[in-house]
Amino acid sequence: MRTAICERLGIEFPLFAFSHCRDVVAAVTNAGGFGVLGAVAYSPEQLDTELTWLDEQVGGRPYGVDVLVPGTIDASAHDRRAHLMDAVPDRHRDFITHLMTKYGVSTPVRPMGATADEMGRRVTAAGATGLIDVALKHRIGLIASALGPPPPEMVTRAREAGVPVAALVGTVEHARRQIAAGADIIVAQGTEAGGHTGDVSTMVLVPQVVDAVAPVPVLAAGGIASGRQMAAAMALGAEGVWCGSVWLTTEEAETSPAVKRKLLAASSLDTVRSRSRTGKPARQLKSAWTEEWDGAEESPGPLGMPLQLLLAEGAMARIGAAAEKGEPGAIELVNYFVGQVVGQLDQVRPARDVVYDMISEFGEAVERLGRLTAE
Amino acid sequence: MRTAICERLGIEFPLFAFSHCRDVVAAVTNAGGFGVLGAVAYSPEQLDTELTWLDEQVGGRPYGVDVLVPGTIDASAHDRRAHLMDAVPDRHRDFITHLMTKYGVSTPVRPMGATADEMGRRVTAAGATGLIDVALKHRIGLIASALGPPPPEMVTRAREAGVPVAALVGTVEHARRQIAAGADIIVAQGTEAGGHTGDVSTMVLVPQVVDAVAPVPVLAAGGIASGRQMAAAMALGAEGVWCGSVWLTTEEAETSPAVKRKLLAASSLDTVRSRSRTGKPARQLKSAWTEEWDGAEESPGPLGMPLQLLLAEGAMARIGAAAEKGEPGAIELVNYFVGQVVGQLDQVRPARDVVYDMISEFGEAVERLGRLTAE
Repeated sequence: MRTAICERLGIEFPLFAFSHCRDVVAAVTNAGGFGVLGAVAYSPEQLDTELTWLDEQVGGRPYGVDVLVPGTIDASAHDRRAHLMDAVPDRHRDFITHLMTKYGVSTPVRPMGATADEMGRRVTAAGATGLIDVALKHRIGLIASALGPPPPEMVTRAREAGVPVAALVGTVEHARRQIAAGADIIVAQGTEAGGHTGDVSTMVLVPQVVDAVAPVPVLAAGGIASGRQMAAAMALGAEGVWCGSVWLTTEEAETSPAVKRKLLAASSLDTVRSRSRTGKPARQLKSAWTEEWDGAEESPGPLGMPLQLLLAEGAMARIGAAAEKGEPGAIELVNYFVGQVVGQLDQVRPARDVVYDMISEFGEAVERLGRLTAE
Repeated sequence: MRTAICERLGIEFPLFAFSHCRDVVAAVTNAGGFGVLGAVAYSPEQLDTELTWLDEQVGGRPYGVDVLVPGTIDASAHDRRAHLMDAVPDRHRDFITHLMTKYGVSTPVRPMGATADEMGRRVTAAGATGLIDVALKHRIGLIASALGPPPPEMVTRAREAGVPVAALVGTVEHARRQIAAGADIIVAQGTEAGGHTGDVSTMVLVPQVVDAVAPVPVLAAGGIASGRQMAAAMALGAEGVWCGSVWLTTEEAETSPAVKRKLLAASSLDTVRSRSRTGKPARQLKSAWTEEWDGAEESPGPLGMPLQLLLAEGAMARIGAAAEKGEPGAIELVNYFVGQVVGQLDQVRPARDVVYDMISEFGEAVERLGRLTAE
């Protein structure tokens, strides 16, 4: 299959795989798709190590890097002198302590000092630039900005390096803003997607974005984990698809076993858009964590980004460890970002097989449609 | 285009048009699609008049009738001796009065006595049976149940008359239950649809329902108002599409001018799922009505169905009349059921042209997909 975006990026299938796990990125790129590594969890040094490994694995095939640069974040993240965690109000700390007690999570809550500061700043434009500088030293074929328009430095550096910039959007208005900011590829992401999403579904959003930004190519995201869904997305006018959730249950994914079990068991009704993990609405598995933050009377309500992200990541690290030990309360709390397609994920497979199955089912769906109109 | 469902129902295009307006139903059926008349607003006598008119218009071409039979409704609706409106608590009546005052709606609120009782009972199984009896005396090609499994009497009578029964579902579980109850066709409706919807998007829901109920044919609903979206739905495995919102801005639609103007101006961000019009979550235009019921501190919160439906219909009749007179507060309050595709609706067209454009764009989308795999 050859779309304009396949030609431009030198790939066989316009199937983009967003993953925080380098093994998934390598497997998809090597299967003829395009792997994109989520870089937000890495320091610039760690990212350099990951990309060096990737360069060795993919033999010159293209892959990309994704950074998280929200448009508006808590001002404290910009102040290099301040300790970010100092900005977390006492009642939010107390609520975490309350949750750990209520659910009997034995692993103690430790303060996240310097680590939190570093992580919080990575989601500022300045912080993201550090990651981008590292990324551009490697043979990457794409830089993606997962939230908010790409900062000007990012666009300038990517342009100089000849690397296209992709930007995720959830509304037509955002798509126009991303184009104005210099994005070369738009990822139109429907509300059913995992992670940060808007309100509008993929079926409704994609054609509107395609029409608004033409001739800029659009990838569809949200609700896509099979070849039929890929064909549907491309019938809507997308030049390719951007998938995240489907990789979480692959053999290669580093998803923790407790989370993987929950993902495999979940139905499409078991996700929720909640601000409880990052401070911005992000779709994730429903769990005691989302229910307590969003519904409990004693909940102080989530903070903004990046403070809620830091608070949640710190707590989830401990909850995850306790869940792995089999602590029932921790298993109730633990969750992860995932889209509504979670209901389709019921077995662990190699990422390569997922790619091949999607491409094969895509072909069948297109053939079936063709027969309808031929008669 | 010929799908199995086209053969079965004797239609040219598997495009189903749900409308409360007989002119839309006739226009779509006459253009080669399949019009379905929403019957909930009619008494059996009125329905008989409408269907007699339709029989004359469509010259033997098939059309259908849709009734609303929620699975669980307020017990008072079953008690034929009681006046339904007596079950509405004072604070709900007071809130309506407060809204009318706050928004300066001059038309007075009149009590809905016998009319409300009759309307409320029409959404019970017994009430729906009256409508079904009338419908089956006409040359209808389909009976649809818009909410909850079709009652056994409905299935029995339809079977005897050789008329297939379609049922709307928002989850895989509901689809299985509808099949068990005797449904012949499943309409899988995503969260982006107007009216009563669940949480799962069309992109995610349709393939799961198709797989769960095969070989029973599935129509896709929600997010479909163009040929690209129709092609996408059929790539997902649907045998046809079920559209409602797209007809609201057609020339034939009896949508009130104030509502039509709001629909034409709205973006896809301007809808909300709210219980404020029927007592069950239904997607509709955001307006002061939904904001007050769902957000205002003094809101008593919506009642169940059918009480909230009666309360809202009574108030909306008056709000609508005031909006037509140009009263600004009434214009803020007025709204209607519509899906996220409302953002695509920006001109008034004949329903026939909508059908032809969808079929033509469908063909283009399928051709474009075919070229991708041919190269």
